[in-house]
Order: sequence, then structure tokens, then C-alpha cells
Amino acid sequence: MTTPLYLEDFEVGRKFGTARLRVEADAIKAFAAAFDPQPFHLDDDAAGASFFQGLAASGWHTAAMTMRLLVEGDLKPAGGIIGAWAEEMKWPRAVRPGDELEVEAEILEVRASKSRPGQGFVKVRSTTLNQHREPVQVLVMNLLVPSRP
Amino acid sequence: MTTPLYLEDFEVGRKFGTARLRVEADAIKAFAAAFDPQPFHLDDDAAGASFFQGLAASGWHTAAMTMRLLVEGDLKPAGGIIGAWAEEMKWPRAVRPGDELEVEAEILEVRASKSRPGQGFVKVRSTTLNQHREPVQVLVMNLLVPSRP
Repeated sequence: MTTPLYLEDFEVGRKFGTARLRVEADAIKAFAAAFDPQPFHLDDDAAGASFFQGLAASGWHTAAMTMRLLVEGDLKPAGGIIGAWAEEMKWPRAVRPGDELEVEAEILEVRASKSRPGQGFVKVRSTTLNQHREPVQVLVMNLLVPSRP
Repeated sequence: MTTPLYLEDFEVGRKFGTARLRVEADAIKAFAAAFDPQPFHLDDDAAGASFFQGLAASGWHTAAMTMRLLVEGDLKPAGGIIGAWAEEMKWPRAVRPGDELEVEAEILEVRASKSRPGQGFVKVRSTTLNQHREPVQVLVMNLLVPSRP
């Protein structure tokens, strides 16, 4: 059990880790059927003929799996992980069936809110890595974090 | 049936629409259970006591529903909707049970790739609106689009 962190507890440069999550072909196809029904996320043969040259997870599936890993990982802001806005999000390479993902989160900036007393923003870079430690997603998100009461 | 669009077919300022999607409480909770298991996305009572003051969809659920609407909407790049990187993503207000979402996409920029002949990038701002036409998500994404063969 990690102690929840208030705004004052965050330090620039501190890193947080997560568990690992294995990505199955069925999960890739199920997410795509629900939210991103394009051939390269749904069907092995169609994917082979596409830009991705094989079945690849939707980037939004990768984002969702990243969130799952973060919520269950070491980064525990008081009040939960609440994203206010993202400044950057990219997918440097495809997520494939059988990949095992984990996330490394690093604190980039901590600042009090000018308009909301008692709250602030923590800028976090979350890098999602595959089992070869290659980045599959990089996300820079500003989290809303309460100050210590 | 909309004709697929190559890089040369996109014009700055052109807008594309989508259908509407109603967000049910069960869908909010199911997505959260899979990908964002935090109390304010899972449980009505816990959500009432949280920052959100009531059940709210995960921002990643909103992103995923936005993708679904886009894939089934009027914006049909040749080769599919393939996001290369996002420059901005924000959630100005919460998505609630019973909300009806639709997306308005506007072309902001069209440019050929310097490193990849035959391809280019189309920058699109996708604004996800609720039934009161209030934005619940704004996403600026660079799509990878092939040039006309």
C-alpha cells in the first residue's frame, strides 16, 4: 500500500513504475471491435496488407492499457489519477499480439493552480515500453492534484 | 459511401461530422473496470464524494468513443485513420451517463512528409460535443495519409 501523494509531495525527476501486462490478439480485436473498427486492428490477413504489416493494437487501446497499468502502479496522487490535459502523445511503434507492456512515469513539473486554491498540476511523462524496452507510447499529461489539507 | 481521401484531397478548414453515440452508465463502468478502475468511474456513491461529484466516464473512454465515431463518420483518409501523434488533448467537462456525443473534425494543416516519400500528415482538430453542444474533449491529432498513387 503506497501512501497517497499531495501536490507538495511530488518532486521533479521522481520516477514511478508499474506491473507488466501481456497483450493478447483477442484483446486487440475486442477493443477494436468496440472502439476502433479498422481492418488492421481487427483481422490478421487485412492487417498484413496494411500500413502496419500485421495485426496492431489501436493507439487508444495502448492508451487505455497504459492507464490501467498506471492506476495499479506506484503513482498514487491523493484523489486519484485525474488527467486535466495532455501536451503530447505519440506511438513510436506498433503494439503486437504477445507484447508485454509496462510504464515508466517521471515527474517533469509541479505547480500550484492560479485559479483553483488548494489544487495544482503535476506534469508527468509516461513512457509505455514493450518487452524489448522499446517505447510504444509516450504521453505527457498534466494531472490535477490536491494540496495537502 | 464516401470516397477515400488522399493527402492532395484535404483542404485546410474543411469539416467532417459523425453520428451520435449515447453513453450509458453500464458502458462507463465496464470501460473503467477494464482500463481505469478508479471509484469515480465505477461506483455512483463513491463518485458523488469525488472531484467529479457524480459518475463520470474515463477520459480514455471518451477518447475511445470519439475514435469510434470518427471511424464511422465522414472523414475517410485513404488507408484508414492512423494517428501519428497528438499535440493537444483536453477534457473540458465530464461525460455523464445519458450524454449523447458527436464529433466535429476540422482540418488545420496539410503537409508532405520530408522523410517518407508518398506520405504526408493531416492535422485535425476533433471536438467531441455533448447533447448541449458543450465540448467534452478536444484533440489535435496528426494523421498519416498517403499521397495519391
